[in-house]
This record gives sequence, C-alpha cells and structure tokens, in this order.
Amino acid sequence: MTNEEILGVTVLNSWKLVISRFYKTLSELSDEQLQRQVAPGKNRVLYLLGHLTATHDRMLPLLALGDRLHPELDETYITNPDRALGDPLSAVELRRAWAEVNNKLTAAFEKFTLNDWLQKHTAVSDGEFLKDPTRNRLAVVISRTGHASYHSGQAVFAKWDIEK
Amino acid sequence: MTNEEILGVTVLNSWKLVISRFYKTLSELSDEQLQRQVAPGKNRVLYLLGHLTATHDRMLPLLALGDRLHPELDETYITNPDRALGDPLSAVELRRAWAEVNNKLTAAFEKFTLNDWLQKHTAVSDGEFLKDPTRNRLAVVISRTGHASYHSGQAVFAKWDIEK
Repeated sequence: MTNEEILGVTVLNSWKLVISRFYKTLSELSDEQLQRQVAPGKNRVLYLLGHLTATHDRMLPLLALGDRLHPELDETYITNPDRALGDPLSAVELRRAWAEVNNKLTAAFEKFTLNDWLQKHTAVSDGEFLKDPTRNRLAVVISRTGHASYHSGQAVFAKWDIEK
Repeated sequence: MTNEEILGVTVLNSWKLVISRFYKTLSELSDEQLQRQVAPGKNRVLYLLGHLTATHDRMLPLLALGDRLHPELDETYITNPDRALGDPLSAVELRRAWAEVNNKLTAAFEKFTLNDWLQKHTAVSDGEFLKDPTRNRLAVVISRTGHASYHSGQAVFAKWDIEK
C-alpha cells in the first residue's frame, strides 16, 4: 500500500466505525423506543436520526457527489428543534433513508484518492480555497464523523433499560 | 502547501476543534457543577473530564511521544465506573491536567509530517503492522478525536440551566 492508500483507508475506517456504532444503537431500539428523549427535555433518538440523516445527505452536493436524496428532512431536523414540526417520515422510512445516504457516501469515499480527498468542497469559492486549502472534502468528512460521534454519545442514553 | 502539509493541518484542525469545544463546556461549569451527572444515573462531568484526560494521557506512550504525565487517573476514570472510587485530583487539578496533556499532544502533532502520522502506534507489533498499515498514529488520533466528541455530546447536557 502507498501512503496515499493507507491514508484513505484510515479515514474511511474511522467513518465506517462511527456510522456502525450509531446503527448498533438504532438496532437495539424498537420504532416505539426511538420516540424516547435521550435525557429529560432533550432530543428524541428519532430526531437525532433525522438530524444525522439530513446532515449526511447534505454532504452529497457539498462533496460534489450528486444530488440530495432527502431534502425534505431539513425543515424538521435541521432548521427546527425537536417536536416543533411533525416527523415527515415514519421510523421505518427514516432508518431506510439513513442507510441509503450513508451507503452512497461510503461507496464514493471508497474510490477517493488522496487528491480526491483534498479537493475543495462546494461551499468554498476558488479564491477562498486558494488562501485556505484545508477547506477540503477530508475536513468535511472528519468533521461530520465527529458530529456523528457527538450525537451517538447522546443516543446511547436512550437504552437505559436494555442489557448491553 | 504540499498535499502532505494540507493533510496534517486538516487532521490537526479537527483535533483542536473538538478539544476546544470540550474546554468551552468546562469553562461554563463551576467546579461544583462538574459534580453534576450529565443525565439521571449517568456519569458526572468530572468523571468524563478524568476519563478523557486519562485516555489522552495514554496517547503519549501509544504514539511514542514520551512518558505518561498522569497514570494515577486510570484506576478511577478508566478501569472503574463513576463513583466507585474517590477522585484522586481536585477539579482544579484535573482541569490543569487536561490542559497539560492536550498541550503536549498538540505540540507534537504540529510537527508531524505525513510520514510521522503513518508510523505504527506502539500497541501493534512490527509483524501485525506489516499486515495492516492502517494501525498507525493517524488512526489513533482520529479515533480519540471521535471519542472526545462522543463524550462532549454528553457533557453539554450538564449545562441545562446555563444560557447558550
């Protein structure tokens, strides 16, 4: 393996691990249990699932990987706080959307070379990117991986009565 | 900037961002408020602080950056669950240890070349590393960054009565 290949696999492993941990938590909760708040007065697990799905879906155009699959989620799960609006999808549909979005992203990341990782993301202009080349796809994916970890740490609290 | 330099800065930015977010939460809580559980029956913020400090301190030998600064934290904050043992340091001392450990790590990361990032960590043997070169320092740092994000998402719950 070249250094570049090692690098790509290392970043990809970390992305896959974080995604798989959130899947694990989801798999241990019934559709009804997804309605649980992760702590008193805090977001429902379903909201976190919608929030992560919408955020990851936004990566598709942000990383120039294609059109969004689920733009209908933003209003409920990004713009508004939990329970301000009704859920646009059922729990089953939302679980499916989560898988669909992540599968599409992961398939694209698996083909990335170091050069692909270091391309600019689409929310930065050519001029800005020349000044700051760290505004690249790698930065976005590492940031979103951290964001998914952050909410994953909250989602596990909903499993209070479930054996490890 | 070369691709290698861009890569190092990108990873470092993500590490710094996650660390700074946890600092921000800590800075908004008094020493007394660090005793709060992040959710009913869950870890105290002080435990999370001790846990992250001990985990990061372990990176020093793991990444071949020197001896540990605070091995006395492991028993309380890694081996045992919260409140099984008394806290070995005061809140003030623990905040200081957290800064000390992260400053030492960050200073080392700032000097890393791509080659440094892709060196094996010390918990993997030469033979295993030959078979799997992704068991490198970069993988450790990305993983610990995610781990810090995970607990950061929990720690913010302790700020329930504090204005954003």
